[in-house]
Amino acid sequence: MKITDVKVIVSSPGRNFVTVKIFTDEGLTGIGDATLNGREKAVVAYLEDHLVPILIGRDPSRIEDTWQYFYKGAYWRRGPVTMAAIAGIDTALWDIKAKAAGMPLYQLLGGASREKMLCYTHAQGTEISEAVEAVAEKIEQGYHAVRAQVGIPGLPAVYGTDKSATNVAALNNLPHEEVWSTPKYLRHIPKLFAALREKLGDDVELLHDAHHRLTPLEAARLGRDLEPYRLFWLEDTVAAEHQEGFRLIRKHTVTPLAVGEVFNTIWDARLLIEEQLIDYIRMTTVHAGGVTPLRRIMDFASVYNVRTACHGAMDMSPVCLAANLHLGLWAPNFGIQEYTPYLPETLEVFPGAWTAKDGYLHPGNAPGHGVEIDEALAARYPYERSYLPVNRLEDGTLWHW
Amino acid sequence: MKITDVKVIVSSPGRNFVTVKIFTDEGLTGIGDATLNGREKAVVAYLEDHLVPILIGRDPSRIEDTWQYFYKGAYWRRGPVTMAAIAGIDTALWDIKAKAAGMPLYQLLGGASREKMLCYTHAQGTEISEAVEAVAEKIEQGYHAVRAQVGIPGLPAVYGTDKSATNVAALNNLPHEEVWSTPKYLRHIPKLFAALREKLGDDVELLHDAHHRLTPLEAARLGRDLEPYRLFWLEDTVAAEHQEGFRLIRKHTVTPLAVGEVFNTIWDARLLIEEQLIDYIRMTTVHAGGVTPLRRIMDFASVYNVRTACHGAMDMSPVCLAANLHLGLWAPNFGIQEYTPYLPETLEVFPGAWTAKDGYLHPGNAPGHGVEIDEALAARYPYERSYLPVNRLEDGTLWHW
Amino acid sequence: MKITDVKVIVSSPGRNFVTVKIFTDEGLTGIGDATLNGREKAVVAYLEDHLVPILIGRDPSRIEDTWQYFYKGAYWRRGPVTMAAIAGIDTALWDIKAKAAGMPLYQLLGGASREKMLCYTHAQGTEISEAVEAVAEKIEQGYHAVRAQVGIPGLPAVYGTDKSATNVAALNNLPHEEVWSTPKYLRHIPKLFAALREKLGDDVELLHDAHHRLTPLEAARLGRDLEPYRLFWLEDTVAAEHQEGFRLIRKHTVTPLAVGEVFNTIWDARLLIEEQLIDYIRMTTVHAGGVTPLRRIMDFASVYNVRTACHGAMDMSPVCLAANLHLGLWAPNFGIQEYTPYLPETLEVFPGAWTAKDGYLHPGNAPGHGVEIDEALAARYPYERSYLPVNRLEDGTLWHW
Amino acid sequence: MKITDVKVIVSSPGRNFVTVKIFTDEGLTGIGDATLNGREKAVVAYLEDHLVPILIGRDPSRIEDTWQYFYKGAYWRRGPVTMAAIAGIDTALWDIKAKAAGMPLYQLLGGASREKMLCYTHAQGTEISEAVEAVAEKIEQGYHAVRAQVGIPGLPAVYGTDKSATNVAALNNLPHEEVWSTPKYLRHIPKLFAALREKLGDDVELLHDAHHRLTPLEAARLGRDLEPYRLFWLEDTVAAEHQEGFRLIRKHTVTPLAVGEVFNTIWDARLLIEEQLIDYIRMTTVHAGGVTPLRRIMDFASVYNVRTACHGAMDMSPVCLAANLHLGLWAPNFGIQEYTPYLPETLEVFPGAWTAKDGYLHPGNAPGHGVEIDEALAARYPYERSYLPVNRLEDGTLWHW
Repeated sequence: MKITDVKVIVSSPGRNFVTVKIFTDEGLTGIGDATLNGREKAVVAYLEDHLVPILIGRDPSRIEDTWQYFYKGAYWRRGPVTMAAIAGIDTALWDIKAKAAGMPLYQLLGGASREKMLCYTHAQGTEISEAVEAVAEKIEQGYHAVRAQVGIPGLPAVYGTDKSATNVAALNNLPHEEVWSTPKYLRHIPKLFAALREKLGDDVELLHDAHHRLTPLEAARLGRDLEPYRLFWLEDTVAAEHQEGFRLIRKHTVTPLAVGEVFNTIWDARLLIEEQLIDYIRMTTVHAGGVTPLRRIMDFASVYNVRTACHGAMDMSPVCLAANLHLGLWAPNFGIQEYTPYLPETLEVFPGAWTAKDGYLHPGNAPGHGVEIDEALAARYPYERSYLPVNRLEDGTLWHW
Repeated sequence: MKITDVKVIVSSPGRNFVTVKIFTDEGLTGIGDATLNGREKAVVAYLEDHLVPILIGRDPSRIEDTWQYFYKGAYWRRGPVTMAAIAGIDTALWDIKAKAAGMPLYQLLGGASREKMLCYTHAQGTEISEAVEAVAEKIEQGYHAVRAQVGIPGLPAVYGTDKSATNVAALNNLPHEEVWSTPKYLRHIPKLFAALREKLGDDVELLHDAHHRLTPLEAARLGRDLEPYRLFWLEDTVAAEHQEGFRLIRKHTVTPLAVGEVFNTIWDARLLIEEQLIDYIRMTTVHAGGVTPLRRIMDFASVYNVRTACHGAMDMSPVCLAANLHLGLWAPNFGIQEYTPYLPETLEVFPGAWTAKDGYLHPGNAPGHGVEIDEALAARYPYERSYLPVNRLEDGTLWHW
Repeated sequence: MKITDVKVIVSSPGRNFVTVKIFTDEGLTGIGDATLNGREKAVVAYLEDHLVPILIGRDPSRIEDTWQYFYKGAYWRRGPVTMAAIAGIDTALWDIKAKAAGMPLYQLLGGASREKMLCYTHAQGTEISEAVEAVAEKIEQGYHAVRAQVGIPGLPAVYGTDKSATNVAALNNLPHEEVWSTPKYLRHIPKLFAALREKLGDDVELLHDAHHRLTPLEAARLGRDLEPYRLFWLEDTVAAEHQEGFRLIRKHTVTPLAVGEVFNTIWDARLLIEEQLIDYIRMTTVHAGGVTPLRRIMDFASVYNVRTACHGAMDMSPVCLAANLHLGLWAPNFGIQEYTPYLPETLEVFPGAWTAKDGYLHPGNAPGHGVEIDEALAARYPYERSYLPVNRLEDGTLWHW
Repeated sequence: MKITDVKVIVSSPGRNFVTVKIFTDEGLTGIGDATLNGREKAVVAYLEDHLVPILIGRDPSRIEDTWQYFYKGAYWRRGPVTMAAIAGIDTALWDIKAKAAGMPLYQLLGGASREKMLCYTHAQGTEISEAVEAVAEKIEQGYHAVRAQVGIPGLPAVYGTDKSATNVAALNNLPHEEVWSTPKYLRHIPKLFAALREKLGDDVELLHDAHHRLTPLEAARLGRDLEPYRLFWLEDTVAAEHQEGFRLIRKHTVTPLAVGEVFNTIWDARLLIEEQLIDYIRMTTVHAGGVTPLRRIMDFASVYNVRTACHGAMDMSPVCLAANLHLGLWAPNFGIQEYTPYLPETLEVFPGAWTAKDGYLHPGNAPGHGVEIDEALAARYPYERSYLPVNRLEDGTLWHW
């Protein structure tokens, strides 16, 4: 088999998505997600100008060799742009291989290790009462695990706490600047979880995301303050470039920790996992460089009692979600999968075999990863420049996003 | 002062270069290098589609805030594409600030710490005799330090050992695949340096680059085998994602070690420096994210007896070389600067104040960093896709480049 | 430019201050603070007898070289006398360079990273009720962060807890001897903060200073006992020569820790920062050796999530405060700045561009650091020998000050 | 007993010396050395303006309390100026106490542990042959251990290698700037010791001093290169602020290491000793803060197999040498004592009981430390400003002295 063509498709059915589609001389095609939220066009150029010319004529079955060619064979490695581009290709090649085998992708990874996969979804409110109600609603919808966020008194709108945040992440032609105060946040969050446990009891799994805005000591404090409420996890407490920083958090709290949605290679997480400084690794197919490296990272994590928990917000296309689900159905150390329902127009452009029901997900049994792209429909949603907000402290200091 | 316009200029006067030019309402302009060898267009898109829109209207004097905005304020950090894009902006802003002060950039950093800066250049041969002759020629030209590379018996052409390699790095429409054998390499290299010392004596400083192709143990062996020849350094022995790997090298040899030309943030080097596992940090302005972070990294290195040695091959434009020279003239822990003379057409497009004489460099005393771009001339050299070669072992295994 | 003259000016407008004034052949002058509280004359001799003769004729723009000349070039390094002397020179040279550039000093450092800088001030009482009232008064005056100290039952007057302590630190012709009891202190302090939180609520930031009088285990206990009151920080718990001692404190409490006002070089803080044993580094321009090394230390701290919090009591002149403010307006990891209003006579001798308003500080936008010295007025306040008190345990044992 | 007066005597009989003389109401007097080479006047001011007023009226027998008063009781601790000042007082108080007991000082420390103390002296030459001859001469004079230094080909005069260097250290009204090259030095030194062993055999103990100019890796290399010549020690290889740096040296060589002549408190050496990174600790009474702390440091070193080797060049007065000898006669872990004969005029000003004979020293048996000062004679040698040279690399970089 030979690769005969590669298309890089940019479409914005609600959100911007970058999709790699690989064509072969035997008629099989495969697609992969290469979406890098807010930096999409850099990945498109990386693919079209630098990687695609090399792919034409290659044997699509040599997935490992192709991955190494673009990673180890390159002078420039790592980083979100590089790894998202490689991921798009790698995922598409696995799609082709599984289709060639006539099997759903999880079969090639080792087969199903479970019947269904626990997911968690998002709920939030500008005030605690509103957030509690939102979580309750999700439980009624069948979810067993909910990530709860809330607005902070004394701060204007906080990202991801507005009710509308569920389905529409901020689309801005220029980054909106928000205001942040860690002390105000730290004082308020325990009250949210006290209220949630009081209203909802102990059966529902509750999660919380700190969006990397704390120092390790602040995270330690928050983790300790939240212990009475037995969180499923506390997520993204600190910016994780300095992995040793997590040692300090770990010294002070037994609240489980999750991190990794912005990681791009195993090197961003190696020490965190090796020293068992986290409980869940949140790397996701598109931003981790594809199925090939993420399978490896999951295996590595299994050595150290770390479970998987792929990022799964709407900033990655349904193609990536499907790849995550195939990996998760197989992985012996699967933990949970993030899930926020897609907009209808997104699902029309990316119809697929995966299912979400009663708080559980399944990748389906179609050959490949099971998601296709409707190119004609995709063309109707042109790219729109969009940014996440930017964060400043109350004195104007630029802060972690 | 306000930023009124930003141009991203792609030009190929011998090599592809990406240049950021920032215009202000007070007429001052500044330029910065954003060249990412072999991945240029991804940086162009990163700049034009994602960063430039944010720059218009900003105060150019807020360099630190702008850097943090694009690094800490972004969801996606690190990686070569991101950091080269930020570097182009950061360097241009320092150029503007130094011009506004009426001073050469090194003055803003703390003033000159030396009269001139030692550089090393490249020499190579397909056979040892040819390489010895090439090094001798460089010494006659006035160089005091030379990096020596040689072809390996039993291997076809090895990158950077052909005589023509000095001035023309491989320009290829598709990556050329070379063949590699570490055992053959390890047996041959000590013979090169035995021959060099026999012919040239002990006064010249000799360097060698292993292009990241060894394991730590192989590097330890090579370092020890080269000890009789007292190298100035042994460079890029192993791929450095696993920084702890250098501990093994360091246990076994006192040959000085250099690494870092592919590093993009301090996080790629922190442990290497903190544990004093290297002697020279080779990060360079364009790939380290600009003047702002490289100043910080140089200072960080100074705490641990690690000296600077900025990458300085022709894959970065003369703008980056100038920025390196300003940083190096100031840095108390300056070590050496790599230097391979530019093609005449490159220097015509990028005329500048820096000088190279008798094996030493100086940034000159023009306000700013002292390099300009001739835009009309630049326009005459359109971009040409170009790749470095890729490496395979003799059995076909894809290997480190 | 050449240095033509250097004056060391001693003046006591309320407190003793040592000021270095450097004159150049181009008419530009710069001043720097070299005040070492209680050891002023040793610095004066260090400057006049040993450093000043070397300065005459030097190029004032070579700030880094001059700093290294006096630090690395000297047989004797480190220590408060040496570093205060070097700081006076270094600060004056940066003042000259920024004036030559026509820019406020913060511009040379990278520009403003925030609009204003949060400060904290002091409040105290001999009894808890008095201390609570004093803190409340500061809040009414517009402060958002207050360091609270209180007298200890069973001990005679405790330093810094008398109401008059705010504006007049002890001036004594011989050191006054006070009495200290750590057990009494440890039992009482949590009561102060319980009372403060009860009366003042959670919005004000509260700080406390233990004046280095505890062992690490005692500090751990105090930190844990204070956790319910969420201090901004607990300061100077233990004498910090044995940096590893902080590991024990850090194991047991999530109360943030600050230290460093008596540190003189990065070596006094390296391990504390590297192992993230503290949250705020309190080194200040005059005692850290000047702008050159403090910039470096701030950058070093930024790698490890440690924030800046320069010492800012009345034992450093307004020149040092200004230098701190320029560094702080730039530093990406600025945390807070200590501030105790100067006496009117001090401000008349040292008129300056910096401002304090509503609990925030700003260095102003005058070229240089913006503070001048009125030499004629300064001459009217001759030096008066003055000591801080000395501390003994109840049995007579000499104890940490 | 009460202290009635304290004189700080500055005299320059060949070299500048600062001597503290304490007078008591019982007629006993004691003297202590407070000389800080090149920074003498700062110590004088530290004493006269800040410490002496506190001493008047104190009980001279409370030595420990007085030491703690000036160290632990002070806001400002550590550093060469502070500790030299305290040392002058502490040594004088021990002199008084031993005189009051009618005993030589070593008796109060625990009595003599040996009959005599091995010393080493200096020899040097601008060329190897000259250095070999100079060492041979010292052996003929009865020395059993000699520190050998030599000029470096390609460098102008190197400090301490001129023949005249033995007795007259550079006296300069302004610091002389020398030129340094570590590569040239590293290549040459092994040749010196090869020649020494060839000419003088294996019986003489040979030492070498690198004056803190190397990096740890360079020191490791030198240590390894010198192993065939079995040095007694290799001294002051690297600037020791970063004590962890010695780990790297220690990994690579079994050449014994000595360091410490510039240390001022145990904190400068704690990790070096605790991790057994050195073999000899070279701290000396005057620069270590006196007899009180140096006794403690010697005891601490004994726990870790580290031996004493007090600095003993002419930059400390015969009073300090005597104090070192009393400590050394007692210390169970005495190693060696540096000794360079004083100028006759120095010995006339400081007549004493100690003796030097056949390569061995003894403190004598006079009560106290046994050295007096002839104040009338001292007055005839007024202070002359003097500096050690400063070091620059060949490119002009300021380098370690």
